[in-house]
Amino acid sequence: MSQQMTTPAYELYYWPLPFRGCFVSYLFAYCDVPLLEISEFEAIEELMSRSPEAQEIPFMGPPVLRDRASGQTLSQMPAIVMHVSGELGLMPDAPFDVAMSLKLLMDCNDILMEICRYNGSLMWEREAWIEFRTARLPRWLAILEASLQRGHLGGDPVTFADIGVFALLGNMTRCLPQLDGDVLQHAPGIHALCERIGAKPSLADFVALQETAYGNAYCGGQIEQSIRRMLAMDAS
Amino acid sequence: MSQQMTTPAYELYYWPLPFRGCFVSYLFAYCDVPLLEISEFEAIEELMSRSPEAQEIPFMGPPVLRDRASGQTLSQMPAIVMHVSGELGLMPDAPFDVAMSLKLLMDCNDILMEICRYNGSLMWEREAWIEFRTARLPRWLAILEASLQRGHLGGDPVTFADIGVFALLGNMTRCLPQLDGDVLQHAPGIHALCERIGAKPSLADFVALQETAYGNAYCGGQIEQSIRRMLAMDAS
Repeated sequence: MSQQMTTPAYELYYWPLPFRGCFVSYLFAYCDVPLLEISEFEAIEELMSRSPEAQEIPFMGPPVLRDRASGQTLSQMPAIVMHVSGELGLMPDAPFDVAMSLKLLMDCNDILMEICRYNGSLMWEREAWIEFRTARLPRWLAILEASLQRGHLGGDPVTFADIGVFALLGNMTRCLPQLDGDVLQHAPGIHALCERIGAKPSLADFVALQETAYGNAYCGGQIEQSIRRMLAMDAS
Repeated sequence: MSQQMTTPAYELYYWPLPFRGCFVSYLFAYCDVPLLEISEFEAIEELMSRSPEAQEIPFMGPPVLRDRASGQTLSQMPAIVMHVSGELGLMPDAPFDVAMSLKLLMDCNDILMEICRYNGSLMWEREAWIEFRTARLPRWLAILEASLQRGHLGGDPVTFADIGVFALLGNMTRCLPQLDGDVLQHAPGIHALCERIGAKPSLADFVALQETAYGNAYCGGQIEQSIRRMLAMDAS
């Protein structure tokens, strides 16, 4: 597909950070299909600040995906992922497998929300973080690992759920390498899956470009500072 | 369909409250298709407390839906809704309409999470509540209203997104009638849509049964007390 496409068919609007946007951009990168990313802070803020009537799609926050040919526009990460996965060849065939893959993507979305404390609605404090790192995160990882053991992840062909797990954990451990050991300990098969997905050359190149652009910036803002403060305290 | 079914094909596991579970149960009730609900607090807690390896599906929290014939089990509300909507005749035909309906269901899910402060992760305090009731909730309602104006909700036939909006707002205003005027003011078309969906006799009967069983209990616990305290302060 990518060989035939000189111009991207889709535009992705997201903040200048991989974070939630990489659940979408990694799908395209894995499949080596071009995607135009619009990530200027001011541009995103301007789109968000419009009244719903004046928005291309009435939405609260990015990511937003726009089909450049049809002008059709979508928000909400899981809806975007489901919509483009068929076209990209990342959608399972059987209806139950589709549902299970969406379930796993929702798990990843929930884990992301827990890490960033619901888009920074509250900051990490010691007691909550210790509970997260010693109980909630290990349980989430065990859920993903058990799903892998049962064949709902890690199959052939690769699905949007496999890439969703990498978008969650691959990006998390790249930005916050202190958590790599947590994934390895509680979900060794998932750790290996992330290494396999991330080794796809087109995706590895894309991640390298993101690292050049954004360094190890994770979710940004005070909430990222709060995560890094907790990790530093864990290490000391 | 329902005429031919004497035994429910599905079991729904959820807390003894409508809250997030009604996004699933209302689909069945609207279509007059039987559903077996397992909602004993102890039963749900026991399922959740098992290790992921010992769970029928590795999951963090309910709702959980089980297909009694196949034994296939799903968690995560949006995945469950997508999976059963095809069978219930609530799935739009066009792929983009499916994606847009999932987007709107995710919006409803986000609104639910904001109201319950991320499953009670923090309590409502005055400043945050005022911001929610005067800015965030009106904007969410305007997003739904604009989606209705553009034909993404409220069409014929009814979709899972229409029922999702009623599961969010119909149940919210039944339990917290002080918010009914907010919906009417900021989303009059959505208010009318909720009245239309809720008037379906099979669904109206089901909601009446829930009201008999649970009264006006909303999300339960300290977080519900915190919402009711804010509403009382708004009124005084």
